[in-house]
Amino acid sequence: MPQFLDTTAADFETTFAALLGAKREDSPDVDAIVADIIADVRTRGDQAVIELTAKFDRLELAPETLAFSAEEIAAAVAQVAPADRAALELAAERIRAYHVRQMPPNQLWTDPDGATLGWRWGAVSAAGLYVPGGLASYPSSVLMNAIPAKVAGVERLAIVVPAPDGVINPLVLLAAQIAGVDEIYRIGGAQAIAALAYGTETIRPVDKITGPGNAFVAAAKRRVFGKVGIDMIAGPSEILVIADKDNNPDWIALDLMSQAEHDASAQAMLITDDAEFGRKVAAAVDKRLETLERREIAGASWRDFGAVITVRDLDEAAALSNRIAPEHLELCVAEPEALAELCHHAGAIFMGQFTPEAIGDYVGGPNHVLPTARSARFSSGLSVLDFLKRTTLSKMTPEALNAIGPTAERLAQSESLEAHGLSVRARLDQLNR
Amino acid sequence: MPQFLDTTAADFETTFAALLGAKREDSPDVDAIVADIIADVRTRGDQAVIELTAKFDRLELAPETLAFSAEEIAAAVAQVAPADRAALELAAERIRAYHVRQMPPNQLWTDPDGATLGWRWGAVSAAGLYVPGGLASYPSSVLMNAIPAKVAGVERLAIVVPAPDGVINPLVLLAAQIAGVDEIYRIGGAQAIAALAYGTETIRPVDKITGPGNAFVAAAKRRVFGKVGIDMIAGPSEILVIADKDNNPDWIALDLMSQAEHDASAQAMLITDDAEFGRKVAAAVDKRLETLERREIAGASWRDFGAVITVRDLDEAAALSNRIAPEHLELCVAEPEALAELCHHAGAIFMGQFTPEAIGDYVGGPNHVLPTARSARFSSGLSVLDFLKRTTLSKMTPEALNAIGPTAERLAQSESLEAHGLSVRARLDQLNR
Repeated sequence: MPQFLDTTAADFETTFAALLGAKREDSPDVDAIVADIIADVRTRGDQAVIELTAKFDRLELAPETLAFSAEEIAAAVAQVAPADRAALELAAERIRAYHVRQMPPNQLWTDPDGATLGWRWGAVSAAGLYVPGGLASYPSSVLMNAIPAKVAGVERLAIVVPAPDGVINPLVLLAAQIAGVDEIYRIGGAQAIAALAYGTETIRPVDKITGPGNAFVAAAKRRVFGKVGIDMIAGPSEILVIADKDNNPDWIALDLMSQAEHDASAQAMLITDDAEFGRKVAAAVDKRLETLERREIAGASWRDFGAVITVRDLDEAAALSNRIAPEHLELCVAEPEALAELCHHAGAIFMGQFTPEAIGDYVGGPNHVLPTARSARFSSGLSVLDFLKRTTLSKMTPEALNAIGPTAERLAQSESLEAHGLSVRARLDQLNR
Repeated sequence: MPQFLDTTAADFETTFAALLGAKREDSPDVDAIVADIIADVRTRGDQAVIELTAKFDRLELAPETLAFSAEEIAAAVAQVAPADRAALELAAERIRAYHVRQMPPNQLWTDPDGATLGWRWGAVSAAGLYVPGGLASYPSSVLMNAIPAKVAGVERLAIVVPAPDGVINPLVLLAAQIAGVDEIYRIGGAQAIAALAYGTETIRPVDKITGPGNAFVAAAKRRVFGKVGIDMIAGPSEILVIADKDNNPDWIALDLMSQAEHDASAQAMLITDDAEFGRKVAAAVDKRLETLERREIAGASWRDFGAVITVRDLDEAAALSNRIAPEHLELCVAEPEALAELCHHAGAIFMGQFTPEAIGDYVGGPNHVLPTARSARFSSGLSVLDFLKRTTLSKMTPEALNAIGPTAERLAQSESLEAHGLSVRARLDQLNR
């Protein structure tokens, strides 16, 4: 049973605060282990990566087999059913079309003082993408990470994906091929992150690392942050559905379960202004949980972290949503656009009853790598901006320097930075001799 | 003496690689201390902050004196000389004018399948800005951090600034007032970062923390990353000047010293295609170092980390610049725009001999909070984007769902995520009954 909350209840604030604060993930203290792994890879390079892969993934590699060869990739993708290939290609096309629009413009202008100012965007030269192996090895995530990088103009895009016991999902390799990935290494864990960040004899270092991973991967990303850029530290997935009574309870139940089936730590919540509708959805969930393939995972998530919250009206729903700052927000109400205006903190908003969140996971176009654990308060989903950086540009004419230089000199003096001031003054003196 | 390098020398690669890899900062292992401080502030709130401030800053506070009162701020800013106020106001105006142009547009469009897609930008609700105390307490940095936040639309902007022995720079308070800062707390160190991230009885938590600080502040920012957003982990300042012989050696020497005077760990480098000009600049530096107020700091930086590199031509200069990825890049050459096109990794570029870097520190308009330690390879200077986050938007019509839903269903099946597929299928079945 999920929790049932009602904003009119006396203990609502306490219960809701506990729900918000619930710790959904064990965070084993892997930091010391990860520090050792990174140090080992920095010192011993390929050899460390090879030994750690034998240990953790039961896979014996040599420097020349760290990467998949073109022949191996071709052989694997040849196994993929045409319908799966077509689906990945359509998804890739739609994701590309969306992300192309994110390319930000350069700007350059001259202000009234004669100063030319602006900025210029450029791509990171090399990026690395972590793809989990095993249960959570999703080809859609390869597309979602790799396509923005290639749209941004990243020249060299490398994937690391563990292949425990040598097993790899051919769809992951196909998705990488469709997205234009340049190198694919069959390694994972903290050792893969260390190899991407610091390089080995075989693997050249990258400038930016993105992609989800387990606690070891997350700890390693946090540690190499600064040496390279990283995207975010992702947590378990979440959905919040705000639905009025004019919805099919089974559709909403399936939307909730489509998050819950990801992970027993995932969280699915419903906010509704009709308590009766909330009960119908909960009943529909129970019915679906009788037959769903992943009912153990989805059931545990729903039981431990699920919630049905009844509110007085949709304004109250928006206010609660802003406190939750959900990764995915579905608005199944008569006027979703109006409600979206009130929802300030969400990774992605899905509007109306014909936009199940699963559309966004695959083919909508927007990225499915989104901020979790309330971080939509301050961060955004993955985009081309994650693979770009901005250089600011300035050029002063003598007139511009005459106009604003004395102010710079004054401020430098007030900060006791004499050379700053003199670097301006020397030029002004020459100009005004 | 700085290092003199020449790309035609046999040992150039070795020497240049050593220069690139030089560790310029002691990184004391403060992480354990910082972890304890954060835990203490989370547990004991105000009381912990007060005790730590008494210990580290020799300042006795109470919950009601953690923040500067309006009267205290008014009394402090009344001491500021009118010329200093005018300088800060002009700088603020120019910084604001530049950053207003960074506001990214929202987008919303309908694609041929009938899917409405787009995104919307919104400001973080509350941001905290760390301002160092003592030697590095720069009012210009207050403007550079606070103005982008306010331009982005941050409603609540709080500053923390340590006041060792109760001493505070009135210009810092004035800069905060000019920039529209809402709250100013006289606390610093890891305890201030913890208070901003987790909140205390008196200080409400924020969503994003920016601003430079010492090793304790940097370690604390790294630790609270995820709970809140952070900007970057800043290192000591750097400048690279690329100059041909048609420059005044003294101007270039002053530009180099304007970075070197920040910090003995700062780095100032010159690349020139004329060895004789390089020697003239080095001589001009030596002469300036006889009299500069901060000659001990600037001299140590120049001696330990300074470099003069002679190259065959400007193409080679650009290639080296891309390996250095400097925070500040000055192009004092005949055609700076053409050279800038070749320089792909730099925080800020200053073009031509009348654009000393100090202009950018104060009044140019672009931000002076820039990526250090080669991180311009993957990150950008502070901007309004640091205080905004993007929500993606999707809305399917029945037609759009019919067009792309089956592809989503197929991909869900290939990833063994049954509920994802069913959430689409249930709707398609209803639509096509």
